[in-house]
Amino acid sequence: MTLSDLIYSLDLFGVAVFAISGAMAARQKQMDPFGVLILAAVTAIGGGTLRDVLLGFDVFWISNNTYLYVILVSALLTMLWPLARAWQYRVLTLADAFGLALFTIMGMERAMQAEVSSLVAIVMGVMTGVAGGMIRDILSGQIPLILRREIYATASLMGALTYSALSYYSLDQRYAMLIAMVVILTIRLTAIRWQLALPNLSSR
Amino acid sequence: MTLSDLIYSLDLFGVAVFAISGAMAARQKQMDPFGVLILAAVTAIGGGTLRDVLLGFDVFWISNNTYLYVILVSALLTMLWPLARAWQYRVLTLADAFGLALFTIMGMERAMQAEVSSLVAIVMGVMTGVAGGMIRDILSGQIPLILRREIYATASLMGALTYSALSYYSLDQRYAMLIAMVVILTIRLTAIRWQLALPNLSSR
Amino acid sequence: MTLSDLIYSLDLFGVAVFAISGAMAARQKQMDPFGVLILAAVTAIGGGTLRDVLLGFDVFWISNNTYLYVILVSALLTMLWPLARAWQYRVLTLADAFGLALFTIMGMERAMQAEVSSLVAIVMGVMTGVAGGMIRDILSGQIPLILRREIYATASLMGALTYSALSYYSLDQRYAMLIAMVVILTIRLTAIRWQLALPNLSSR
Repeated sequence: MTLSDLIYSLDLFGVAVFAISGAMAARQKQMDPFGVLILAAVTAIGGGTLRDVLLGFDVFWISNNTYLYVILVSALLTMLWPLARAWQYRVLTLADAFGLALFTIMGMERAMQAEVSSLVAIVMGVMTGVAGGMIRDILSGQIPLILRREIYATASLMGALTYSALSYYSLDQRYAMLIAMVVILTIRLTAIRWQLALPNLSSR
Repeated sequence: MTLSDLIYSLDLFGVAVFAISGAMAARQKQMDPFGVLILAAVTAIGGGTLRDVLLGFDVFWISNNTYLYVILVSALLTMLWPLARAWQYRVLTLADAFGLALFTIMGMERAMQAEVSSLVAIVMGVMTGVAGGMIRDILSGQIPLILRREIYATASLMGALTYSALSYYSLDQRYAMLIAMVVILTIRLTAIRWQLALPNLSSR
Repeated sequence: MTLSDLIYSLDLFGVAVFAISGAMAARQKQMDPFGVLILAAVTAIGGGTLRDVLLGFDVFWISNNTYLYVILVSALLTMLWPLARAWQYRVLTLADAFGLALFTIMGMERAMQAEVSSLVAIVMGVMTGVAGGMIRDILSGQIPLILRREIYATASLMGALTYSALSYYSLDQRYAMLIAMVVILTIRLTAIRWQLALPNLSSR
């Protein structure tokens, strides 16, 4: 499996898990099947679409139908699967954490192809990771999760900084990706497990 | 009247009715005149702007002032017209249904010029039809109408599928457009008349 | 100092004040440090990013890291500064008024480089001025300020019309900019001082 095959496979996997995350959020809000599909789609490809538009790239899902089919199948499965309530929340949280890790690093990869600065690559990576979820939350009438006190975007940022540093020291790209994704997953899952949150500073 | 003249006229008509729909929503929220104008504009050109940006086209209203003038006049008339409350709601709903039908098919037309796949053309059509109204709802602090249980985006999707099928079988484009628009209007108005809604599946 | 130096300096100043405005709004909502940073960034560069994407320009902050550094520093200072509550509100309002004046005129300047019509230049100027604040308000779960009855976008529009008229009569560009910005600041600060608002017309 070449590196670009690996990236493509991971990208599709990220699309699937984020689509599931969006579809589950829509189910919780009792949306109709079409609302579920739309929320699955914006969660799955919202961040990457924004990234491609800002970088001046052709939007990735327009020339390749596979992304849309993956979203369609993921949304249908999520709609039909009779999940128990407790499971629902856990799957949603896990899918979201995996998607966050995958999309942050995939987003940086794509930005680096445009030969932007490391700073912009980090911004694009975090944006790819978190923007879909932000749009999902806005569309379902909530203040975006990431603006609340959970360690979410912070996990994405830590992974992005890790990947940027490892790429700088010319580590083999496959290992760099893997390590950076593990960093994001570890921070995010640790935060969920022990309900960690960043302090806000407004009480000063 | 050539086909492209017809398309242009219908496009301007769609902009007018969606601008009215946006302006009426703003009046109901008691916004000031400028708020009315902004909501008219985003409802009328939001979907098409998003479509053009994603397809990499020049944004349609930037090189042709007519669209902005149509919005300005539509918003002013809506502000000044002393409508009765019952009429207001009915006009808003009807304008919205017409706009939905026009924009879905116009959006597909435009996407087909970029030679995208049928699937992407359908997505672009539905997006052109529903995105303006979604932005309108978000800006006025509501969960978007289309994510609720009304048959709204579903009507757009049925029309888009119809147009895609009719185009595939090489029906005369004018008839194909007309039939697809009638499909959207019929489904949407029937749903409104008998208050139909798609079931949500979350109670399983 | 050449005109383009002046424009660049004012642009960076506008980014700083809007970043402060966004960061203060995030503090009031008790967001975590990362939420503060994101709200600072979208408020500061949201309007200009939208403008550049619609005009088909390269997005201004992607090829120049200075903008992102200014946002980072502004957000950090806002987080750490132990402001009194009364001061907070006043600084937020003033920063916002300055940013509005600067961004409206800078946005028109940039649009004019694309040789658009005066009408589109005015739309782009107002959009650059108000869109960042609108996104800030949506992300923090409020109906955007500008859609409420305050004279906000109206101030931006008056300044844009002034600049358009003065440019038409070939006034020296530096004076035209200065006069138009003073118009915006005066209208906005007057509206705040005497709590003026546009009437809404929905009671007819």
